[in-house]
Amino acid sequence: MIPQSIEACTLALFGASGDLALRKLFPALYQLDQAGLLHADTRILALGRESGEPQQHLAVIDQHLRLHVAADDLDDATLQRFSARLDYLSMDFLSAEAYPALADKLGRVEQLIAYFATPASVYGAICSGLAHSGLAERTRVVLEKPIGHDLASSLAVNDAVARYFPESRIYRIDHYLGKETVQNLIALRFANSLFESQWNQHHISHVEITVAEQVGIEGRWGYFDQAGQLRDMIQNHLLQLLCLVAMDPPSDLSADSIRDEKVKVLKALAPITAEQLGQQVVRGQYVAGSIKGKAVPGYLEEDNANAQSHTETFVALRAEIRNWRWSGVPFYLRTGKRMPQKLSQIVIHFKEPPHYIFAPEQRPLISNRLIIRLQPDEGISLQVMTKEQGLDKGMQLRSGPLQLSFSDTYRSMRIPDAYERLLLEVMKGNQNLFVRKDEIEYAWQWCDQLIAGWQRQGSAPKPYAAGTWGPAASIALITRDGKDWYGDL
Amino acid sequence: MIPQSIEACTLALFGASGDLALRKLFPALYQLDQAGLLHADTRILALGRESGEPQQHLAVIDQHLRLHVAADDLDDATLQRFSARLDYLSMDFLSAEAYPALADKLGRVEQLIAYFATPASVYGAICSGLAHSGLAERTRVVLEKPIGHDLASSLAVNDAVARYFPESRIYRIDHYLGKETVQNLIALRFANSLFESQWNQHHISHVEITVAEQVGIEGRWGYFDQAGQLRDMIQNHLLQLLCLVAMDPPSDLSADSIRDEKVKVLKALAPITAEQLGQQVVRGQYVAGSIKGKAVPGYLEEDNANAQSHTETFVALRAEIRNWRWSGVPFYLRTGKRMPQKLSQIVIHFKEPPHYIFAPEQRPLISNRLIIRLQPDEGISLQVMTKEQGLDKGMQLRSGPLQLSFSDTYRSMRIPDAYERLLLEVMKGNQNLFVRKDEIEYAWQWCDQLIAGWQRQGSAPKPYAAGTWGPAASIALITRDGKDWYGDL
Repeated sequence: MIPQSIEACTLALFGASGDLALRKLFPALYQLDQAGLLHADTRILALGRESGEPQQHLAVIDQHLRLHVAADDLDDATLQRFSARLDYLSMDFLSAEAYPALADKLGRVEQLIAYFATPASVYGAICSGLAHSGLAERTRVVLEKPIGHDLASSLAVNDAVARYFPESRIYRIDHYLGKETVQNLIALRFANSLFESQWNQHHISHVEITVAEQVGIEGRWGYFDQAGQLRDMIQNHLLQLLCLVAMDPPSDLSADSIRDEKVKVLKALAPITAEQLGQQVVRGQYVAGSIKGKAVPGYLEEDNANAQSHTETFVALRAEIRNWRWSGVPFYLRTGKRMPQKLSQIVIHFKEPPHYIFAPEQRPLISNRLIIRLQPDEGISLQVMTKEQGLDKGMQLRSGPLQLSFSDTYRSMRIPDAYERLLLEVMKGNQNLFVRKDEIEYAWQWCDQLIAGWQRQGSAPKPYAAGTWGPAASIALITRDGKDWYGDL
Repeated sequence: MIPQSIEACTLALFGASGDLALRKLFPALYQLDQAGLLHADTRILALGRESGEPQQHLAVIDQHLRLHVAADDLDDATLQRFSARLDYLSMDFLSAEAYPALADKLGRVEQLIAYFATPASVYGAICSGLAHSGLAERTRVVLEKPIGHDLASSLAVNDAVARYFPESRIYRIDHYLGKETVQNLIALRFANSLFESQWNQHHISHVEITVAEQVGIEGRWGYFDQAGQLRDMIQNHLLQLLCLVAMDPPSDLSADSIRDEKVKVLKALAPITAEQLGQQVVRGQYVAGSIKGKAVPGYLEEDNANAQSHTETFVALRAEIRNWRWSGVPFYLRTGKRMPQKLSQIVIHFKEPPHYIFAPEQRPLISNRLIIRLQPDEGISLQVMTKEQGLDKGMQLRSGPLQLSFSDTYRSMRIPDAYERLLLEVMKGNQNLFVRKDEIEYAWQWCDQLIAGWQRQGSAPKPYAAGTWGPAASIALITRDGKDWYGDL
């Protein structure tokens, strides 16, 4: 049975022949259909600039479905039902003349969802086209990242969309917010008084957020080199995680209550001045190395690389939040490509007990950590000290994890992809998991100062061998405070 | 290698033909030998009132060893080494003339450990005998429970022993203190700031301590009927657990620092007046019922039973600790025979979050619990709320355990019996895990008022069917406060 809140809609997917649509969006929509979460009357209109027979484009979509949906989840009945919902229209998104045809094709629609899986530079034109052909009124627009590459350009994009759509119908994607474990942060914090009552500078020593990729550039050199890891990962994913970890408890679960709290965090982020930049932010770029025993090229040796590039593929930084809750608690963020493993995790380090009564040599063991793993093996684990067992042991301590692995808990259950959740929430009209205009803008403002600082310095990023945890300076960044990156091997 | 702190000693075991010695003490000593924790020069002198050839008595000990030590742990080399340490002397513990012979037999001893596995009424005579034959000076005495059956009689026993031995050489056994998980309470509390910083009335709603036995009287009717469950279990084991849970952090791990804190708890136990008795204490006695589908007789139908007995086989009570830390936090204690399962556990219930933002119907789920299981399956588990996974679930909560099972953690390791640990600590001269005189006395004082109240009332205990969790009044005791016994099936 479909939950009542999921109404019938028509989803107009701009950029339907793109990588994101083919690899993520259509498979996610298929999974929703498979799970019985699409209304019977829901239609999907794939929109691409590519001309040619619709059938030909629909065949490509079908082909990718079979490639990207797990074989276990593919069944003929769903495939048939799903393809019956699908249609394709070729149009030039930048041409105002194309939109009346779109309106014709759509016909009378109660609820339109316009998903922009295109470069942000096109968003304005699409919005204008939709509005001028009478399609804006009952429409929710979904904006893919990146929304701009700095504050000014993101303002331009947001303003262009805002000309035709109110914030309440704008859904900005950060797919990290669709991950089950990220949503679990809300439950973990606000349903467990054990954690939340210690979630502050009195009890927490520091916080680590790591998003490590094992892959390199994957053929996107030109695109990536324009951005770099700070814009590509910190400005959105890592700052979003930071906000969810650091925000004050919202008074309810409504989208704006949560987003108000997130914005408060971003506004409280201490600026990092040009003088502090060298100490608090580490920029890296991978050189040749090896991943799982296999030699891989450096960033500057990748296909299509410009060997002069100063673009960073790694960032580690030490952020501070200037508010009552977090004063004095460093947040260490790092993200990079070509790391030893694919790993996304948040580590909350609780303070040591104020008084220590066990054997002195065990002192370093003594602190509780809450580890929230986003990938791989989503789950949470709490490092707790117990007594070492055995007669020959006195009151010797042992640090052991209390574990909750979501894949164990939900053994038979597929972990839904983030896009499934996000598409579902758009259909429900729930903006909880989407990024508000001001969040994006404050995040850019904070990142812009770092980029400006780097540009003034003009120095090259520090090299690190592919397959390592980044430049030595990243280790120095945290050991300078008497701490370590947790779990690095 | 033997830890340096374990010196050679001679262990004189009074009551060597008794049940405790044969089932627990010799097997425990054997295990210490097996583990290499007995000094090469350590000797064991078994002392019994039974006359006859020493060889015959030693054969009985050997027989019981083979019965009570797990087959995997029996090996010829250790058996041989162990039996070479053993000797037997028949003596009348009450006869002063017997002690010079004991002194002769012992010869020159650097460190004597006199273990009293006899009725407490004999302790005084043994102490006097040891002292008058010059054996008191380098001797540690180990006293088995019960030490008296009320405050007055325990004072008499303690005083008789104190006439010849200083408190620093008196080791009073409560074998619960030798259990690994009970010792783990110290580590859990004082090595984990996460727990200890919430270990008070601000954050803890209530505490449950359950020690349920599945067995009934096991041929000890006459003995047990003189005592009852309050004297047999609450006065010692449950109040000791209560102390370890409730005590303030000691400033170090020395025996007296810990015991000072435990005594403070006992002294702060709110008296239960005659008027409160009916509401706060439930006394039960099992009637016929069934355990694991097998019919079992009631307490008054057991062999040798006096059908008029009012002795309780079950006690549930609501205790309060009148101090800054615990004011307003009820401690629910219960213990009984013929319960549905053998279960010892402590459940710390944390308070609900102060503000609730999730679906109202899930509210009852919302509280964290720390469960410390002593048996079966020793371990700790923390109930934590997470988000229910699955696309059809919104922010639905799920209560799940973070688990640490000691038997999993130490898969290949035998959990040592409490007596092994306790004997070892006596040999090390460490009084940490032993009960000080004033602890016993304050515990009796508190229990005496309950017994006196019952006697004044003169009412019979409430019946409960064997195989149930006690009288309905035990449930009422806790539901009256809007709570439930955790995990009862």
